[in-house]
Amino acid sequence: MTRIGIMGYGNLGRGIECAVKYAPDMELVAVFTRRDPATVTIQTENVPVVSANEADAWTDKIDVLLLCGGSATDLPEQTPQYAKLFNVIDSFDTHARIPEHFSNVDAAAGESGHVAIISVGWDPGMFSLNRVYANAVLPEGKDYTFWGKGVSQGHSDAIRRIEGVKNAKQYTIPIDAALDAVRSGKQPELSTREKHLRECFVVLEDGADAAKVEEKIKTMPNYFADYDTTVHFISEEELLRDHSGMAHGGFVIRSGKTGMHLENNAVIEYSLKLDSNPEFTTSVLIAYARAAKRLYDEGIKGAKTVLDIPPAYLSERPDAELRAALL
Amino acid sequence: MTRIGIMGYGNLGRGIECAVKYAPDMELVAVFTRRDPATVTIQTENVPVVSANEADAWTDKIDVLLLCGGSATDLPEQTPQYAKLFNVIDSFDTHARIPEHFSNVDAAAGESGHVAIISVGWDPGMFSLNRVYANAVLPEGKDYTFWGKGVSQGHSDAIRRIEGVKNAKQYTIPIDAALDAVRSGKQPELSTREKHLRECFVVLEDGADAAKVEEKIKTMPNYFADYDTTVHFISEEELLRDHSGMAHGGFVIRSGKTGMHLENNAVIEYSLKLDSNPEFTTSVLIAYARAAKRLYDEGIKGAKTVLDIPPAYLSERPDAELRAALL
Repeated sequence: MTRIGIMGYGNLGRGIECAVKYAPDMELVAVFTRRDPATVTIQTENVPVVSANEADAWTDKIDVLLLCGGSATDLPEQTPQYAKLFNVIDSFDTHARIPEHFSNVDAAAGESGHVAIISVGWDPGMFSLNRVYANAVLPEGKDYTFWGKGVSQGHSDAIRRIEGVKNAKQYTIPIDAALDAVRSGKQPELSTREKHLRECFVVLEDGADAAKVEEKIKTMPNYFADYDTTVHFISEEELLRDHSGMAHGGFVIRSGKTGMHLENNAVIEYSLKLDSNPEFTTSVLIAYARAAKRLYDEGIKGAKTVLDIPPAYLSERPDAELRAALL
Repeated sequence: MTRIGIMGYGNLGRGIECAVKYAPDMELVAVFTRRDPATVTIQTENVPVVSANEADAWTDKIDVLLLCGGSATDLPEQTPQYAKLFNVIDSFDTHARIPEHFSNVDAAAGESGHVAIISVGWDPGMFSLNRVYANAVLPEGKDYTFWGKGVSQGHSDAIRRIEGVKNAKQYTIPIDAALDAVRSGKQPELSTREKHLRECFVVLEDGADAAKVEEKIKTMPNYFADYDTTVHFISEEELLRDHSGMAHGGFVIRSGKTGMHLENNAVIEYSLKLDSNPEFTTSVLIAYARAAKRLYDEGIKGAKTVLDIPPAYLSERPDAELRAALL
């Protein structure tokens, strides 16, 4: 059994609990929190909630520690810190800062002899894998990534920072016509506006000016100005009732060419349709925790990404069985 | 530069030539044939066509030999034979015999110190990868594979063996309603008949009985009896004009569940839409030839499959660049 620890108990921490429950070769041994452990109730019975300060006492009881913090401030600190003590997995998703994060984590994990797999999840993660496979197989071509339909936390937060807004959720929605154009093999050039719509559900503070809020949203640079944006004003009750879901998904498509004169189209498409974004993300994390243990047992150390891991290492089934059943 | 040799010059051999042309780090150095080399004209200039009997004189001039024979009789002999002399890639696709083939090739490649990657292509190959990834991430779920629309060589051959048939092409066509049911997350049980249609284009010998041929096709066990089959009788000219394409494709879908009580759906879909089946297949072979060279340079030996190879090994771009650009 691979012994799993969780660092941080939010949506991802709860997702890990679910994924461990259905992994036949895994057991959850501790949940670490920066809060007062007495105030944290988890879903799994007979698993202790422990102060994050006491994690170093658990190094010989945990095979892989799953880091469930955020990419903005938590993981840049936590992943190098805990890679000194444990094999770790994180879901660091600030694409532009991955090289720097990789380098920091690699130094820490290399020195302590642990395996640290960073940027695991679906984007980065499964989507990255598919971009690399598709680019290697079809060197002549064009990549397209679409996200949604799903809630963007960053865009929802941006709306909530506007004066007069009490609460908000923002859905990113891929545009069907753009998807169809890409699937046709024509390799269209698509503007930002042509690829995704943005739909906002906003709860106003008492007395706020709806027209002014809508104008501020629609003209916000980077977040909304380049998109066709729809704004709906609703009550807080409606927001909680109808917009608390965590569904998400997306599409990675490579439209390429084959043949001596590149005369033939080849379109590779990978897509996800997820009722629960955090539960799927953590299902990926747990599969890579299995790989981290196997690599560590082989004497491998340092930072890794999904691009470095053989697919078979994600499965609990022996290689020969995978060849017979799934190849 | 990775120096590539081709063993066997049919559709796959021609596809390799195209894929090598667009791989910046590859060069084609020889094409081997069992025919009289003087009778074989290839598409690439200044590359020799050599008798297969002389391959052993090329061991220090070729990094990876691509085996382009058939799975029925060629590859079970050729792959172990040439793995004694070269790093090799094959597209062995008889799923049921993969364990036996792997074992034979592993013995030969292990002894000679070469890398042999078997069963490369799209099914087995890219589809297998996606089955393994999706099963590891979603242990609770159900797998679906659909093929087509595309020509099935085996089914076309079966029709051609019927008395009175001069020529034939058979298309395997996935049924949209079945695909939609699978994508819904409902995990339907689908019969053979519900998943694929079979459409046949048949040229009769002079004086043959069309009704009798149609009856023989539609009732043929294993090949057609379990399917809804349509038969069109056409002229040889029409067959050559309208049905000489090599388009193919398919879908690998895993419909899984996440959550503490498996209350949420998660659907992973991978699909291919290919104008040229052999050109895409060989594009995959060439990407794995790159991986074989890298593994060999690291001192690895023995038989491998796509399940054993880290995704980054397929790319000519350095790992750090992949992390920065595609992760």
